[in-house]
Amino acid sequence: MWRNDNYTPVPVSEKRPEDGATPSIPLKPLNVDESPQVKKLGPYFHDGLRRIDYVLTYHVQKASGLRRQSSRSFMRSMRQSLSRSFRRTRQTPEAQEDPEIAAQEHQLDYHEDDKHFRREEFEENLREMGLELEKDEGTTVPGMGFLKIHAPWDVLCREAEFMKLKMPTRKMYEVKQGSNIVEKINLFIHKVTEPLHPKVEESKIQTVKHLCYPFSRERQHLFDLSDKDSFFSSKTRSSIVHEVLKRTKCTRTKYLMGINSLLGSGVYTSAFPLHDGEIDGVRAEPNDRKILYEEWASYSLFYKYQPIGLIRKYFGEKVALYFAWLGVYTQMLIPAAIVGVIVFLYGCATVDDNIPSMEICDPRNNITMCPLCDRACSYWKLVTACGTARASHLFDNPATVFFSIFMALWATMFMEHWKRRQMRLNYIWDLAGCEEEGLSTDHMRSDYEFRVMQKTLRRESSSSKNEKVKLTCTDRLPAYVTIAVMMLFMIAVTVAIVFGVVLYRISIKTALHMSSTPTFRSNVRATVKSTAAGINLIIIIIMDEIYGALARWLTVLEVPKTDKSFEERLIFKTFILKFVNAFTPIVYLAFFRGRLVGRPGKYLYVVGNYRMEECAHAGCLMELCIQLCITMLGKQLIQNNLFEIGIPKLKKMMRRRKTKLATQQEEELKKTWHQHEKDHFLGPFVGLNPEYMEMIIQFGMVTLFVASFPLAPLFALLNNVIEIRLDAKKFVTELRRPLASRAKNIGIWYNLLRGLSKVAVIVNAFVIAFTSDFIPRLVYQYTYSPDGTLHGFINHTLSYFNVSDFQPSTEPLAPMHLGYKVTLCRYKDYRDPPWSATPYQFSSEFWAILAARLGFVIIFQNAVMLMSDFIDWLIPDIPKDISQQMQKEKALLVDLFMKEERGKKHSRSARNEQSPSLPRSRLNSNSQSTC
Amino acid sequence: MWRNDNYTPVPVSEKRPEDGATPSIPLKPLNVDESPQVKKLGPYFHDGLRRIDYVLTYHVQKASGLRRQSSRSFMRSMRQSLSRSFRRTRQTPEAQEDPEIAAQEHQLDYHEDDKHFRREEFEENLREMGLELEKDEGTTVPGMGFLKIHAPWDVLCREAEFMKLKMPTRKMYEVKQGSNIVEKINLFIHKVTEPLHPKVEESKIQTVKHLCYPFSRERQHLFDLSDKDSFFSSKTRSSIVHEVLKRTKCTRTKYLMGINSLLGSGVYTSAFPLHDGEIDGVRAEPNDRKILYEEWASYSLFYKYQPIGLIRKYFGEKVALYFAWLGVYTQMLIPAAIVGVIVFLYGCATVDDNIPSMEICDPRNNITMCPLCDRACSYWKLVTACGTARASHLFDNPATVFFSIFMALWATMFMEHWKRRQMRLNYIWDLAGCEEEGLSTDHMRSDYEFRVMQKTLRRESSSSKNEKVKLTCTDRLPAYVTIAVMMLFMIAVTVAIVFGVVLYRISIKTALHMSSTPTFRSNVRATVKSTAAGINLIIIIIMDEIYGALARWLTVLEVPKTDKSFEERLIFKTFILKFVNAFTPIVYLAFFRGRLVGRPGKYLYVVGNYRMEECAHAGCLMELCIQLCITMLGKQLIQNNLFEIGIPKLKKMMRRRKTKLATQQEEELKKTWHQHEKDHFLGPFVGLNPEYMEMIIQFGMVTLFVASFPLAPLFALLNNVIEIRLDAKKFVTELRRPLASRAKNIGIWYNLLRGLSKVAVIVNAFVIAFTSDFIPRLVYQYTYSPDGTLHGFINHTLSYFNVSDFQPSTEPLAPMHLGYKVTLCRYKDYRDPPWSATPYQFSSEFWAILAARLGFVIIFQNAVMLMSDFIDWLIPDIPKDISQQMQKEKALLVDLFMKEERGKKHSRSARNEQSPSLPRSRLNSNSQSTC
Repeated sequence: MWRNDNYTPVPVSEKRPEDGATPSIPLKPLNVDESPQVKKLGPYFHDGLRRIDYVLTYHVQKASGLRRQSSRSFMRSMRQSLSRSFRRTRQTPEAQEDPEIAAQEHQLDYHEDDKHFRREEFEENLREMGLELEKDEGTTVPGMGFLKIHAPWDVLCREAEFMKLKMPTRKMYEVKQGSNIVEKINLFIHKVTEPLHPKVEESKIQTVKHLCYPFSRERQHLFDLSDKDSFFSSKTRSSIVHEVLKRTKCTRTKYLMGINSLLGSGVYTSAFPLHDGEIDGVRAEPNDRKILYEEWASYSLFYKYQPIGLIRKYFGEKVALYFAWLGVYTQMLIPAAIVGVIVFLYGCATVDDNIPSMEICDPRNNITMCPLCDRACSYWKLVTACGTARASHLFDNPATVFFSIFMALWATMFMEHWKRRQMRLNYIWDLAGCEEEGLSTDHMRSDYEFRVMQKTLRRESSSSKNEKVKLTCTDRLPAYVTIAVMMLFMIAVTVAIVFGVVLYRISIKTALHMSSTPTFRSNVRATVKSTAAGINLIIIIIMDEIYGALARWLTVLEVPKTDKSFEERLIFKTFILKFVNAFTPIVYLAFFRGRLVGRPGKYLYVVGNYRMEECAHAGCLMELCIQLCITMLGKQLIQNNLFEIGIPKLKKMMRRRKTKLATQQEEELKKTWHQHEKDHFLGPFVGLNPEYMEMIIQFGMVTLFVASFPLAPLFALLNNVIEIRLDAKKFVTELRRPLASRAKNIGIWYNLLRGLSKVAVIVNAFVIAFTSDFIPRLVYQYTYSPDGTLHGFINHTLSYFNVSDFQPSTEPLAPMHLGYKVTLCRYKDYRDPPWSATPYQFSSEFWAILAARLGFVIIFQNAVMLMSDFIDWLIPDIPKDISQQMQKEKALLVDLFMKEERGKKHSRSARNEQSPSLPRSRLNSNSQSTC
Repeated sequence: MWRNDNYTPVPVSEKRPEDGATPSIPLKPLNVDESPQVKKLGPYFHDGLRRIDYVLTYHVQKASGLRRQSSRSFMRSMRQSLSRSFRRTRQTPEAQEDPEIAAQEHQLDYHEDDKHFRREEFEENLREMGLELEKDEGTTVPGMGFLKIHAPWDVLCREAEFMKLKMPTRKMYEVKQGSNIVEKINLFIHKVTEPLHPKVEESKIQTVKHLCYPFSRERQHLFDLSDKDSFFSSKTRSSIVHEVLKRTKCTRTKYLMGINSLLGSGVYTSAFPLHDGEIDGVRAEPNDRKILYEEWASYSLFYKYQPIGLIRKYFGEKVALYFAWLGVYTQMLIPAAIVGVIVFLYGCATVDDNIPSMEICDPRNNITMCPLCDRACSYWKLVTACGTARASHLFDNPATVFFSIFMALWATMFMEHWKRRQMRLNYIWDLAGCEEEGLSTDHMRSDYEFRVMQKTLRRESSSSKNEKVKLTCTDRLPAYVTIAVMMLFMIAVTVAIVFGVVLYRISIKTALHMSSTPTFRSNVRATVKSTAAGINLIIIIIMDEIYGALARWLTVLEVPKTDKSFEERLIFKTFILKFVNAFTPIVYLAFFRGRLVGRPGKYLYVVGNYRMEECAHAGCLMELCIQLCITMLGKQLIQNNLFEIGIPKLKKMMRRRKTKLATQQEEELKKTWHQHEKDHFLGPFVGLNPEYMEMIIQFGMVTLFVASFPLAPLFALLNNVIEIRLDAKKFVTELRRPLASRAKNIGIWYNLLRGLSKVAVIVNAFVIAFTSDFIPRLVYQYTYSPDGTLHGFINHTLSYFNVSDFQPSTEPLAPMHLGYKVTLCRYKDYRDPPWSATPYQFSSEFWAILAARLGFVIIFQNAVMLMSDFIDWLIPDIPKDISQQMQKEKALLVDLFMKEERGKKHSRSARNEQSPSLPRSRLNSNSQSTC
């Protein structure tokens, strides 16, 4: 709690003289209407007229709450000079420890006092900026003070001009959806999909659009200001107030304190804009929140489009972009899911025509396989692997190759589609011209400010050089080292866990093989696979939470300068950790399992005498598939249902309990609560990053290993349909209203998506080439097969082993298990037979197939990348009609100003000369000059 | 000449009444100072005060020139209505053929008249827009009329406001180059590199910068308007006039005619801004052009930085960006050239330690090779290939692999460096906030307008539906088909040419082998290689010109809508054709030559009985290298010197001859020429695309096959050092001043560069893996070699051939050439020996090495791509100091306006209440509110 130790408040003795002052003088005298406020419990001041645009909350000590509320300005200057001189004496490092020696209680009082004065100063400042304030201290909610802020019309105008907010002008123009035919088709589609549209105004096709222009008081005549109350929406008002809050600073403290620092140091506990009103109950007037609740945040509407325009109007662009993105993603998953299901069904349909699995299942092919483990296992017949082979075919057939190419292109299409959608939204929301950030969004974080102050103090004590202090790499070095070490350590932990699960699997398998019960033996594989996958899943979910917290902690350690950089660094760390966590077991299964086995007679042993596990006969694809399936389903079910629905409810309950209100009483009180009090009990908005992160990991699951699991898009689709409404419910009912922030795009997430879809290409290439048997089958069919079919493929993939070459004490304990003496057993590999010149060396076929696999990877990767780039190039980023509209809008603006210009010139010349201006008459009708 | 047939001018009879009118009435009465204009031959009106901002030229018929100069406005309206009614009657398709029946002479007269009237109308319109005009018809230059345009102050202000031009305000602020230490280092570097900086003002480190803000007449007080003449630079003035010209339209014609259409239909012949003044001679006043000529456009300054700021000031952002890019590219080539030379020297130094070439050159290794051609050639000893093997080592050694990785990363670094440089320039030039395009740059091309008009006419005759007509895909289909066919055909031609050269090489080689002269025989390889490369070079250069013209023709066929789209399509086509042209021979050499040879006894034959050519023993890398070297050097020398220096001079001479002035007279006259007359005789500016294209092809040469030719960057560097000054000279002295166009980046070229550097990675991977012997050597050393060295490598690469297996009539005519009977000969391939079970089949080594090659490609490609992406991610696109400055600038702007705001409020309150405003005094000193 650095804020307690390092900031020295003004001593109590200096503050005493003001004690007797009357409370709450700083508030502007309001014509407060003290009649029962039943009708106006919405977000209004007590007068029921002025809207509350923003609320700051703070703790008040009941006992001393009234005593200290004063602010005589003649005292302020004195206090200021005193504190300054005090600060000067405090600049010796020894003085820093003083407050800790002081009595704990007094200090608490100091701090409360200090906070109180800072609040007062801050409030005075806000008033100077033109804002109107109203205070509500501990009336309904004990111990909490509310500072309600209202921005009057002239402040709104001024700030809108500074922020270059684009507002609709009076000028309207017709929006044309391309040519007549296109327009008719659009209308028809709209009519057909009528039931899919939410019942909000904006879902109708709009044929006119207001021309938007950055608000300017000098050009007020351009805008339709007839209804000043609704000209700026509640979202805009609150973001304007937020802008003012950010700009307001306290300089009387040791270092400049903005609202961030004030929040960080506990002077205020929270700052949030208010919801528009109630979502249910008889008292609820129609408001945007209610509409959203009814037309968006309900599971029964899962098949409908989202009212993106309304979401934007209520929550701002950033949140709306998230939901729009989620919507596009879900929509794009539909074709992917359909194709995936078809591919899966194709696998099901062709399973009986599949020659390799037929050969395995044919008992006439009397193939004796080498034992799967040392000593405990014995020789086995290939025909017993029949079931696995048939199941493998479901996921390992030529259609899978097609599907992974399809999904790579799908990912590109998705990105392109999103880019276009984003462009369209930018146009509709008039963000096209506005700059990426507002004029002053990059305020320093309070942590950073504090660290800089610390450094300044240290430096001032050592040298008197008065240059601007900032955190350099040297200051951050310890943090960087910690981060690097922790990240590597956590990745190592993940790998170790995977390895642990592998060991678990090996040992359990051996143990089960040892057991004499035959039913156990037959279920060995299934049991081991599912328990291992289950363990993996649970570990992944637990580690996910740990990694999330860890990433945040590491980022705090790093002390980034601005909120933006904090967010970026946090996302980066979280992404790496969560991604590694989710995908390490899958990557192990896909690329390492079964590769490092060695060969009979020369197995590879780890940790003493554990033999590395082999894959089932038909490749590891089957197990990869099971793992993916369990991870995806389990993660979605547990994380969604438990964490996203359960935990917020729990938290809410906890928060309520804190205020120590009995449920009965609460219900009573609730009816008299004002909006700001209701919102106070909602959860704070923590940003969209967790939501995005979840989706990105899912996107990874859908694209990265899609070659092994064609049903992934279907699962993702089912999850997302719920996810949208779940998030909607959360935003509308569970959370405080987020501050509306302007955003033109989804930022770093887009790059992550792009990166993932690039990685997906190469991963899928490797999965097809190395994990599946696609290439060996192909090579066999076209090179080695005597008749051009796959007949004899199984025999071709199996090498011979002479049982006399077993290493001592590894031969099976029961060599006669199959009923006959085995001299040669078979194993899956391409090696020369024992009777060749180079026994057990890799054969020519091995190298040829390896070359084919590698060649496939190169061709697949480059072909798919080329196709993706081609699609990227083919589809224009800006939809044609939008670019036309934008052109038109520009032309209209020039028009408008030329007209205005002429008007001015006209009036000027009329005034100056009073002469009949003949040629003008023509010009006014047509803004472009004619000849 | 569609303009002659389709626009029907007003008949002569209707125009006659005006014949007697006095000439040049439309000119505003000027206080023309008719004193000898020796002093003011610069770009001024006759009054010597008003600057000529733009010039339009047109042809005047001497005979009828004076007769028709009239413009009584009372006649105009009558004429207008007449032509309108006439037009209405003309809308039947039959009427369209009428003018062609009329007598040729009359028609010419009609057209001249018609053009004249259009000019008059256009000029009247310009005057209405506020521009001031002056005419100069056939005075100095016979047959040419000059319309000189001057934009007065209020027009400049108005347009600057529309165009949102950012102009410097009075407010200055200090620019800090990072911390103190960084600043000192920068200063030191600047001092050290002092002699490298051009002697212009801007090359000093600037410590203050004017805050820039879009010009606004309402905020005039912000700007320093003390010198109204120089507030807008000549470049800005001309682009403002151009903006007005583009917006001005003629509506009295059949379709709207902007300046583009007027130029396209020959009403005006050219439109250009004027140079600032003379570059030499005694009369030359100091001007920017002269400074540029002295401090930039000179070969003797090749080692200096370019005065980019001045270039931008004079030529505008687009041209300056080209030169800045070229500068960055050249600068970045320095390290690449150095490393390339080191790699080459490493090859030279290690040539004697190279075991494979030692083994080849060792006569004790008595290896008999199979004949290189059928019948004519005989067996040969490997030791004769000693020279080639040693030379090959220069370009085929491990350092080459390092170098191609280096160059791939170099390309990424170059892109990043350029992005940062561009960002820095954007900041310095205050382009950061401005939108990509001006308000109305996307005007239609006249060709497009004409085609649309044609279509409208056609449609109007068939149906009366009056919707907006535009060119659809159906209209363009014939053009698209033509383009596709032509492009494919031209690519086929290129491939055919390469194949022709191959055939030439094969036949010449055989012929030379046949010849009995021994000196001929020994020089066979060298002769063939160099003549073939020479032929290739000449064909490439010729085809380059043809393809350039072809691409333009195809693009014209396509009738793109806007200039921007025309440019993009043209670039796209030119790029494909020129690229294919330049790289097909190289690609053939690198990847196809020597692959499709077959084996002794089973060679591959093409076109009758030509055996496909083999590579020299040490791989094709050597020949690839020679080809690259000749192409690069030859192309640069011939294209630069001949085409870029010679042809423009020739053209200039031709243009002068046209005006039929004897040289003597010309010199006399030249002295009295005004600036616009001088500029008229300069070549028109045709855009930067040819310059960029040349550089892109060079960039391709430098990056794509750098693995085979490490000296490429050095050659490119030498070329570019000259290229910069050559282009500079051309721009300053040979060409008319280009219209300054705003641009924030180099547009499509950046994407092409990115694409090339991506392709380069995979091409280099293949060159190293397949063209060079790097991988076989590596595999031999670490797998097959008995002692871990390369000893025995040569023997390993050679397979055995039993001479009894020759196909009939292919065995050599002189089998005893070497003096002994040969039973087994060797050839370069990995095949099983004749005595194995599978004779002449690819051996296990072949497949192992193939797998290694492919594996290398995958690893190389992905590793280099990953590294590139990492570098891309690591280096921020915006330099840190620039982003800080931009932040600061934003804050300063907010500050400025808050202050202004307070000032306003203050004065308002002072006016309204006349009360002492105590709290304000503090606020004025600090713009941020304090507490």
